[in-house]
Amino acid sequence: MIRIKVINPNTSPDMTASIDRIAKAHAPIGVEVVTTCPSAGPVSIESYYDEYLAVPNVLAEVQRDPHFDGFVLACWGDPGVDAVRETTIKPVVSIAEASMYAANAIAPRWSVVTTLARSHHMVEAIVQKTGLTARCASIRCLDLPVLACETDPEAIVTGLEMLSRQALQEDKAEAIVLGCAGMGGLDRRLSDRLGVPVVDPVAAGVRFATVLVEMKLQTSKWLTYRYPEMKAGGWNESLKS
Amino acid sequence: MIRIKVINPNTSPDMTASIDRIAKAHAPIGVEVVTTCPSAGPVSIESYYDEYLAVPNVLAEVQRDPHFDGFVLACWGDPGVDAVRETTIKPVVSIAEASMYAANAIAPRWSVVTTLARSHHMVEAIVQKTGLTARCASIRCLDLPVLACETDPEAIVTGLEMLSRQALQEDKAEAIVLGCAGMGGLDRRLSDRLGVPVVDPVAAGVRFATVLVEMKLQTSKWLTYRYPEMKAGGWNESLKS
Amino acid sequence: MIRIKVINPNTSPDMTASIDRIAKAHAPIGVEVVTTCPSAGPVSIESYYDEYLAVPNVLAEVQRDPHFDGFVLACWGDPGVDAVRETTIKPVVSIAEASMYAANAIAPRWSVVTTLARSHHMVEAIVQKTGLTARCASIRCLDLPVLACETDPEAIVTGLEMLSRQALQEDKAEAIVLGCAGMGGLDRRLSDRLGVPVVDPVAAGVRFATVLVEMKLQTSKWLTYRYPEMKAGGWNESLKS
Amino acid sequence: MIRIKVINPNTSPDMTASIDRIAKAHAPIGVEVVTTCPSAGPVSIESYYDEYLAVPNVLAEVQRDPHFDGFVLACWGDPGVDAVRETTIKPVVSIAEASMYAANAIAPRWSVVTTLARSHHMVEAIVQKTGLTARCASIRCLDLPVLACETDPEAIVTGLEMLSRQALQEDKAEAIVLGCAGMGGLDRRLSDRLGVPVVDPVAAGVRFATVLVEMKLQTSKWLTYRYPEMKAGGWNESLKS
Amino acid sequence: MIRIKVINPNTSPDMTASIDRIAKAHAPIGVEVVTTCPSAGPVSIESYYDEYLAVPNVLAEVQRDPHFDGFVLACWGDPGVDAVRETTIKPVVSIAEASMYAANAIAPRWSVVTTLARSHHMVEAIVQKTGLTARCASIRCLDLPVLACETDPEAIVTGLEMLSRQALQEDKAEAIVLGCAGMGGLDRRLSDRLGVPVVDPVAAGVRFATVLVEMKLQTSKWLTYRYPEMKAGGWNESLKS
Amino acid sequence: MIRIKVINPNTSPDMTASIDRIAKAHAPIGVEVVTTCPSAGPVSIESYYDEYLAVPNVLAEVQRDPHFDGFVLACWGDPGVDAVRETTIKPVVSIAEASMYAANAIAPRWSVVTTLARSHHMVEAIVQKTGLTARCASIRCLDLPVLACETDPEAIVTGLEMLSRQALQEDKAEAIVLGCAGMGGLDRRLSDRLGVPVVDPVAAGVRFATVLVEMKLQTSKWLTYRYPEMKAGGWNESLKS
Repeated sequence: MIRIKVINPNTSPDMTASIDRIAKAHAPIGVEVVTTCPSAGPVSIESYYDEYLAVPNVLAEVQRDPHFDGFVLACWGDPGVDAVRETTIKPVVSIAEASMYAANAIAPRWSVVTTLARSHHMVEAIVQKTGLTARCASIRCLDLPVLACETDPEAIVTGLEMLSRQALQEDKAEAIVLGCAGMGGLDRRLSDRLGVPVVDPVAAGVRFATVLVEMKLQTSKWLTYRYPEMKAGGWNESLKS
Repeated sequence: MIRIKVINPNTSPDMTASIDRIAKAHAPIGVEVVTTCPSAGPVSIESYYDEYLAVPNVLAEVQRDPHFDGFVLACWGDPGVDAVRETTIKPVVSIAEASMYAANAIAPRWSVVTTLARSHHMVEAIVQKTGLTARCASIRCLDLPVLACETDPEAIVTGLEMLSRQALQEDKAEAIVLGCAGMGGLDRRLSDRLGVPVVDPVAAGVRFATVLVEMKLQTSKWLTYRYPEMKAGGWNESLKS
Repeated sequence: MIRIKVINPNTSPDMTASIDRIAKAHAPIGVEVVTTCPSAGPVSIESYYDEYLAVPNVLAEVQRDPHFDGFVLACWGDPGVDAVRETTIKPVVSIAEASMYAANAIAPRWSVVTTLARSHHMVEAIVQKTGLTARCASIRCLDLPVLACETDPEAIVTGLEMLSRQALQEDKAEAIVLGCAGMGGLDRRLSDRLGVPVVDPVAAGVRFATVLVEMKLQTSKWLTYRYPEMKAGGWNESLKS
Repeated sequence: MIRIKVINPNTSPDMTASIDRIAKAHAPIGVEVVTTCPSAGPVSIESYYDEYLAVPNVLAEVQRDPHFDGFVLACWGDPGVDAVRETTIKPVVSIAEASMYAANAIAPRWSVVTTLARSHHMVEAIVQKTGLTARCASIRCLDLPVLACETDPEAIVTGLEMLSRQALQEDKAEAIVLGCAGMGGLDRRLSDRLGVPVVDPVAAGVRFATVLVEMKLQTSKWLTYRYPEMKAGGWNESLKS
Repeated sequence: MIRIKVINPNTSPDMTASIDRIAKAHAPIGVEVVTTCPSAGPVSIESYYDEYLAVPNVLAEVQRDPHFDGFVLACWGDPGVDAVRETTIKPVVSIAEASMYAANAIAPRWSVVTTLARSHHMVEAIVQKTGLTARCASIRCLDLPVLACETDPEAIVTGLEMLSRQALQEDKAEAIVLGCAGMGGLDRRLSDRLGVPVVDPVAAGVRFATVLVEMKLQTSKWLTYRYPEMKAGGWNESLKS
Repeated sequence: MIRIKVINPNTSPDMTASIDRIAKAHAPIGVEVVTTCPSAGPVSIESYYDEYLAVPNVLAEVQRDPHFDGFVLACWGDPGVDAVRETTIKPVVSIAEASMYAANAIAPRWSVVTTLARSHHMVEAIVQKTGLTARCASIRCLDLPVLACETDPEAIVTGLEMLSRQALQEDKAEAIVLGCAGMGGLDRRLSDRLGVPVVDPVAAGVRFATVLVEMKLQTSKWLTYRYPEMKAGGWNESLKS
């Protein structure tokens, strides 16, 4: 039995439940999925500020459960993914990368559509970090908050359909990547309307993590992701108090 | 039951058997894998010339079995992958791309090691086409023929170990991608010697194709991969005879 | 006397004749041009599928006439150009590259205009392979079949003029490359209407091939384009029959 | 009077004092510099893990003193710089970028030399994010801990000299950027030995921040760096307790 | 006392006076600025032709005053900046690079707006040479002559505001760089209208040059910018007279 | 009769004669070649300083003979090529670009070998401007002056052979481009020793210019290369005298 821990880095119970639903629906036979979120932190991750406040608790989520076989970071902004990779040898998959790999195999160019206007350059940075800039046709953003995925899914679908059509017609995209963990379940509705494949990132993340676990591929500890040093006097608690 | 057809584009029975062994070992529960090779064509693909002679028969292999749920192209040179994607709506995975996605998720940079010296720029072109040039630390090639994987695996392992050490130490790679379908089973031996993850491309291809099938993601028919036109007078058989 | 063989990879007699007319008109003094097309294969190359079915016969056209001094591949999709370069030491020029070199010398940025909408990313790949992505302002495609160049040239010219104006005004192109071998003779008409240089690819191909022949530059056999190996048991004819 | 706050993201008192010494020495006339470090956190930042644990306290350092005119992030890994830019409209300068700008103006290509072997790809990512990959000749790393800058400066200088010579001779660098805030004061010694300019990042950071303040240039709040939303129920403290 | 020489490469007295006004207003305490222009040459630099005719006199301006501590080249086209760097060891700052560095520190992406339509690809080349192509959102040009900055500033401001809004809304820029030395003083007016930071290049140039001087950073003489050789018979005056 | 003017931008009579010899040897039938050099200026171009002093006289060489059909700029550093293109509508070919196009058609990757160590980054900039960075395997430089091509050709050949072998073996080049106009005639000797094609840039320049002339392709006057404006008061002769 393979056990995958899916971590929603924000603390929204609704989004965690939604992610869990998709993750369980896509858990292959023989894979147990547990979805959690940090015990404290921002209810949504809509800025770098949110990201940096969320990550220490994300790291704690990983360290609490070292015996899981793999981890999925269920936020398209992949907050702290490099730090997570340092704290465990188990494979760590960001839903961003997994969804881009899936799109890359079925279309020459794809676009990322997402909610927050302000995340445009952040998404661009993640695509670049993954190495796939040359395959990304465009990034198109609504101007709706992340949690609207839970509260007003119809507005989200309508908006994403509009953005996707622009991507297909003006940017020469041929498939669509949903750029938010909260969009679970919208992939089929959108794909039906558009007539092109649409990738659900949580589904891709769970399935791709399973692939790595089954292949016994672990995070490389050669250089960058070596475990952090246990420094003598490595942590100061109250320099100023 | 999901059915995946793995196509070895060359006609070597030994290599086909070897690919089949790996492919079956990595078929997830509920997935049936059938490995074939074309009925005619070059016994190994070691040049562009070989590739172009092999592809028409590879296409026939796909068209013969339209009811498979997905296809894996089991040659790191991914001969004809774009043409295969035009002839079917089922997902088509090249073992090259699948192995790079796996490496990308476990290491900041990775190298491709392979047999043929002459394939250096060909491998470079495939990495670039996949979009992952910025993540590839280097390509390093032995100067051995492809079929040496079958006839002299020990020479291959020793050679690959040397190349991999150079990649890790001089090129800052942190994981290794085996750049040939014939290297199945060498991943564990090499990984044990090197202490870094080593990706078997056939295993990655079969598993990643299953992911796409299970996610119901099909090849986009929006633009590039539309089915080829049935042209009136679309084929001339004997202009000069 | 220099002898150049121009190969139209499709089997359309009309397009072959049209290419021959342009090629002969641009043969420098002292150069004999022979234009042929394969004896069998698709009548037009409008997909990767067409390309892969055409190439084996293109290779045969090269091998049939080893004594020519140079070869021109007269299709902007340069089908099989790397394989052709493996089969001969004579210089092999694709009309795509030759037309881009010419445009590159007379304008800071240029655009490729062509017929088939579906070829957009294919053209992009050819520009990238040639290495000139940074100099290409845009690719703009009509949605007309390749053979419309023969049957409805007026529609082609009108469409190309519209695309070219968009390229000049919106994309900052300053010259136009005709992205199809069938557009021979349209360059002057289009140039007169637009007021910028327009490059005919077949003309560029024949003239650039002559340059290489006269400079005694042959295809490098150092690594990538070495002749394909004569493999023992290198070809299997009937594995399954 | 302009007031600049220099934040050392780690909690080493020695390194903070060392940074302060350089920062004050480079404060232009009319500029008051205050150097601080977080009250709690890792004593050195040698991994992504360290970075993510340090940043929340770095952000608190900025928020505690909103009336400063500008901020300098005194760690070459620029931990949390994007989040800092969201929390203030004052200019925020990372010593990494400032040192690269200085090098860029005095040499066609430059190299970054630093302590930690494991930070190689992290430095590469920072150069890329700054946009200057094409101007960076190489990154070369010792394998010494960050705090060795304080405890064994001679070993650091000797090591950096060796790396720098390799960069100048093998990588075609023409100037050297010191890739660690702890290397303050080593620039002149190294420059004297090498005969090329060597950039001290803390000095560059303080001076470049002053430039932005004097030019009244503030962080753009147009899109990416808008202040984080005050979300209703924006923070969950104890979901699980 | 630091002395900076600002060189306007064109010979317009009005523009030289305007540059001098901005340069003096931005000279830090303890810095004396002298602004000059060549004694002969084109009154504005609006083409490569103008640039090449202007540069010999620009070089003479540098050689006439070797005792200045630093030089600022006050034309966004940075005519002859590499040659200037060969003729002096003092730091030489182009206003183009200095303005891009400032924008880079306050916004994830920025656009350059300028007067001359014909300079579009020239500006692109300067951004690329500086190494910042990946951070530049777009280049947008009016179609007004350079000297209109002096004769019709209102038309310039109105035009730049329109271009800037397009850059912010369509190109995802978040700050604006003024791409002409003649636009001094327009930065605040434009910034007030747009609500984003606008960078004055002359101000940035003078301040950034001061930073380099105060840091004692000189032009590297390692390789590219070595002083030109005093060649035996190095100059022919009248081969044909 | 086509007339091509070849301009050697330096004033060395020996090098002009040497260039003329190659140029005439490669003039196609029906092409008259005239080789000149400026009447005054540096005897060799070994720095940006030399380049900028040479170009005004190069421009005069073009303007003196407007009736030539095409121009070849016979220096691999292509000094002032953009300015030359502004002053004439006739095609202007730099020997640098012509030699790279030729190499590009016969090898997947090629290297530039040249004399001056200091020109390394200058050559890199020219390759990038031509757009062919991705196809250039490496740049390798001797440390000999340009005129050594005339005075000590044997030392040049021996040095170039060594550099070329490094390029072929270490950098994966498959052809060699001679990066100096003075190396005329060395191509065959070097090619015979190396066993790979070696491109003579003057020969390539003359032949490629002829191609453009025969195709009636002229320099685009759409935007960048418009003729320089005749400015009212466009030139100041004696501001300070």
